[in-house]
Amino acid sequence: MAGATRTTTHHTARTRSWWGWGWADAHPDDAECTAMGALLPGTLARPLPVPRISDLRIDRPAVEAPRSLSGAVTADPAARAAHAMGKAYRDVVRALHGRPGRIPDLVAHPESDREVADLLEWAGEHGVAVIPFGGGSSVSGGVEYRGDRHRAVLSMDLTAMNRVLEVDVAGRAARIQAGVLGPSLEDQLRPHGLTLRHFPQSFEFSTLGGWLATRAGGHYATVHTHIDDFTQSLRVVTPAGAGTSWRLPASGAGPSPDRLFLGSEGALGVITEAWMRLRERPVHKASAALDFESFAAALEAVRAIAGSDLAPANCRLLDSGEAALSGASQDGSSVLVLGFESADFPVDTRLEQAVGLARAHGGRIGESRDGGRDAVGAWRSAFLRMPYLRDGLARMGAIAETFETAATWDRVPGLIDAVRTEVGAAALKATGHPALVNCRLTHVYPDGAAPYFTVLAAGRPDDQVAVWDHLKEVAGEVLHRHRATITHHHAVGRDHRPGYDLQRPEPFALALRAAKGALDPHGILNPGVLVDLVDLVD
Amino acid sequence: MAGATRTTTHHTARTRSWWGWGWADAHPDDAECTAMGALLPGTLARPLPVPRISDLRIDRPAVEAPRSLSGAVTADPAARAAHAMGKAYRDVVRALHGRPGRIPDLVAHPESDREVADLLEWAGEHGVAVIPFGGGSSVSGGVEYRGDRHRAVLSMDLTAMNRVLEVDVAGRAARIQAGVLGPSLEDQLRPHGLTLRHFPQSFEFSTLGGWLATRAGGHYATVHTHIDDFTQSLRVVTPAGAGTSWRLPASGAGPSPDRLFLGSEGALGVITEAWMRLRERPVHKASAALDFESFAAALEAVRAIAGSDLAPANCRLLDSGEAALSGASQDGSSVLVLGFESADFPVDTRLEQAVGLARAHGGRIGESRDGGRDAVGAWRSAFLRMPYLRDGLARMGAIAETFETAATWDRVPGLIDAVRTEVGAAALKATGHPALVNCRLTHVYPDGAAPYFTVLAAGRPDDQVAVWDHLKEVAGEVLHRHRATITHHHAVGRDHRPGYDLQRPEPFALALRAAKGALDPHGILNPGVLVDLVDLVD
Repeated sequence: MAGATRTTTHHTARTRSWWGWGWADAHPDDAECTAMGALLPGTLARPLPVPRISDLRIDRPAVEAPRSLSGAVTADPAARAAHAMGKAYRDVVRALHGRPGRIPDLVAHPESDREVADLLEWAGEHGVAVIPFGGGSSVSGGVEYRGDRHRAVLSMDLTAMNRVLEVDVAGRAARIQAGVLGPSLEDQLRPHGLTLRHFPQSFEFSTLGGWLATRAGGHYATVHTHIDDFTQSLRVVTPAGAGTSWRLPASGAGPSPDRLFLGSEGALGVITEAWMRLRERPVHKASAALDFESFAAALEAVRAIAGSDLAPANCRLLDSGEAALSGASQDGSSVLVLGFESADFPVDTRLEQAVGLARAHGGRIGESRDGGRDAVGAWRSAFLRMPYLRDGLARMGAIAETFETAATWDRVPGLIDAVRTEVGAAALKATGHPALVNCRLTHVYPDGAAPYFTVLAAGRPDDQVAVWDHLKEVAGEVLHRHRATITHHHAVGRDHRPGYDLQRPEPFALALRAAKGALDPHGILNPGVLVDLVDLVD
Repeated sequence: MAGATRTTTHHTARTRSWWGWGWADAHPDDAECTAMGALLPGTLARPLPVPRISDLRIDRPAVEAPRSLSGAVTADPAARAAHAMGKAYRDVVRALHGRPGRIPDLVAHPESDREVADLLEWAGEHGVAVIPFGGGSSVSGGVEYRGDRHRAVLSMDLTAMNRVLEVDVAGRAARIQAGVLGPSLEDQLRPHGLTLRHFPQSFEFSTLGGWLATRAGGHYATVHTHIDDFTQSLRVVTPAGAGTSWRLPASGAGPSPDRLFLGSEGALGVITEAWMRLRERPVHKASAALDFESFAAALEAVRAIAGSDLAPANCRLLDSGEAALSGASQDGSSVLVLGFESADFPVDTRLEQAVGLARAHGGRIGESRDGGRDAVGAWRSAFLRMPYLRDGLARMGAIAETFETAATWDRVPGLIDAVRTEVGAAALKATGHPALVNCRLTHVYPDGAAPYFTVLAAGRPDDQVAVWDHLKEVAGEVLHRHRATITHHHAVGRDHRPGYDLQRPEPFALALRAAKGALDPHGILNPGVLVDLVDLVD
């Protein structure tokens, strides 16, 4: 079909991996996988083979798009397989074992709001489930259909809507189509001297619409941590009609319309474009890394900095395990990475003041650095490489995944201890081998912080998914007991529904179900995300 | 009834005015009113008399509360009259003329969530409209029933729920009952060294719950301008049940539950308590006032400051009329008042940098100040006195009211010009006398600003309300044409519904109506606010 040619053109010869993170050519090779596996006793002697789409059984589509939409829709098996799941560890492992999630019947690449609306109308008439799909980097089951197996499924890939449509240079804002991937977005803004500065780990492989629909966390560690804060106006196409909020710097007119769709994860409508608040590129930068013997003291330092008016752009605390893993420190220290930036004024004084607060809590500059090695740079390159290494470890049969949360400061130390202890014990019991459970703080607030955990453990290929699901369940129980959110910036998807349902206040649940019923009366949009279809039938 | 004794005890002998702003003893006396009127040609020679509750016709209540709730409910005529309306100019004038809005049948002062829920249950069973009421300072018809005159109405005054229940000093947060008035809230926080620092003009006469339900704008001119940003968790009692969101510094789990109730203006539920993010009291402060010959240049200066990382606490720009009115300047200059504060570090450098940006756009420090007179202080005392003066002018038959909005920077200069020109022309036409239409910016953003307008004109007692409503309609048309929000921080209430309905995106309207139907199935909560009851019946 003609639609198959609509997949976004990257001006590069690189190919996206259908089964794993990012670029196919960036994955560790068999030798590297084997070397990594050797560091984790109990893993395989050689890696599981890279899976091939041609080995999958892909049924003929259960539905066919009408002729009027055929230009936007493809039934190409490779496109369908690449849209079956997100990129969580459990997704990667299922692909490695040739058992991916439900492969959608069709993939659409709409190029306009009109096509989005037409697709929704057709899907509503035929009861076809529609999964909005940006870069496909969901790590919480956000783009995978898990409902009635007899229902037809269409993956709606927005990446053909990938242009910056309008730039208000003086007002530092731009109207941007939702399907644009991070690098292309920044490429299109650069000639105007502007930047969104939203750099999640998935930057290369996720879209503006995905960031908005999942309330993604980005570049800034303090103050404006989520994409929400950079949103000036949204355009949303729903089965019940489309609408655009006004471009406003702020408003007090009723509940924020945009805040209902931010985080709606494709369950209430399809975000097709947004006016985003931009920044001038920073010209003043200053950063430092401090070592702490005591993680508890480092937490206090971070709390002091987060509670001040200093507003660092970067304020990431790595515990000793995380610091060792990323190469930021090898002597058992925890490492605090601080960064300030501004387009307007030098930030050295602010850095000095933040370093002063860190020193007052026992921080020491740079002592653990070997030679000229820069902890900031080490951290950054390790950060972008991590998902590839995770997939390499998955090929060795290992457990290798992350999850994140946020809690108020009174909860943070106990929460981190409990996750380490209880997830570690559960991993030992399940695998027979000790696990690494590391922690870093990615975003910090005057009233709390967002801990991000990495779990590394041996595993067996026959039960990798089951063991990880068990560990995640244990983690979810710890989070719930400490009243820590089930997700700070990875979205609810399907994987986090149990925790989400427990934490969501009942009046909001009632309101959300009612809103879903009004906007998506046939229950076609991302079924099972945020709201159960059975709730709508009640 | 016993409930009559439940009105909040202020430890003061001062009495609240039932018909006008604030304290009864703070109103200008007849001589002052006459002197003010003399400045506005065309007003009365002597003021309208202060209205008395005893002159009102107050019918017997159409309903009686059940015995189980009688302790919480009063039918006292004075209490009922004082809960009939908010404190907009049009409310004050109607009271002056002995024609207040619908006087509620009953006033309740619940002391617990249980009583709130019981009152809602009783009201639902009997079809009684319930108007949640905080300090009663609404300036947009938010606390006045305007529906079917045969329907019984209960004003639910939350001010008996006025305590700080819990303080997390280390986490800088407190759990606070919604009915607490500003001064009592700060009094209760002071022993802990903490402050909410939310100081709207109505601070003495408005409650935390009112601020939350109306998305009030507060102390800070930049970054965290609305109460929304200081909200950690909300407790809401709705006719369909109660719920509390978790205390979280941030979360990405679905759309923000709190953001649906922030700005819900009592139409979705009653906010009974909240965990609020607090601050340590600032110890470092620095401020300056700059004069600008050109208002346009001053706007550019403000845009530069708002777009920088300096984040002043105060950044208020007064046009020449507003500067003259408040005593900040008498030479035709516009005046920019800048203020910085911090609990952590000296802010002199930041002030210097902001002043530098202002100077680069033609700002001059202090030249128009007469002697040691401080524009900052002059502005502050005039600010708190203004609503009293407004009421004094109302007694002279004058038109004297304000309204505010927000728009992106590309719209701001044209919007301000159009409001001045078109509202001024409409006032001249309606009254036969020239009007003052002044403007200040109260809150500023990298992408826009919140202009706040003051309108002063002669008027005639027989058509003060009609003339003002006409001017407000003209203003609303200008705002709509310039895509400026119908309110930045004064809420929608009933007065702003036409503008609100035009600006609200249709998918959000559908979702909001559905949410209202789910949470308030009998349509008892603040009928006519945000959503029409007829919408629910459809």
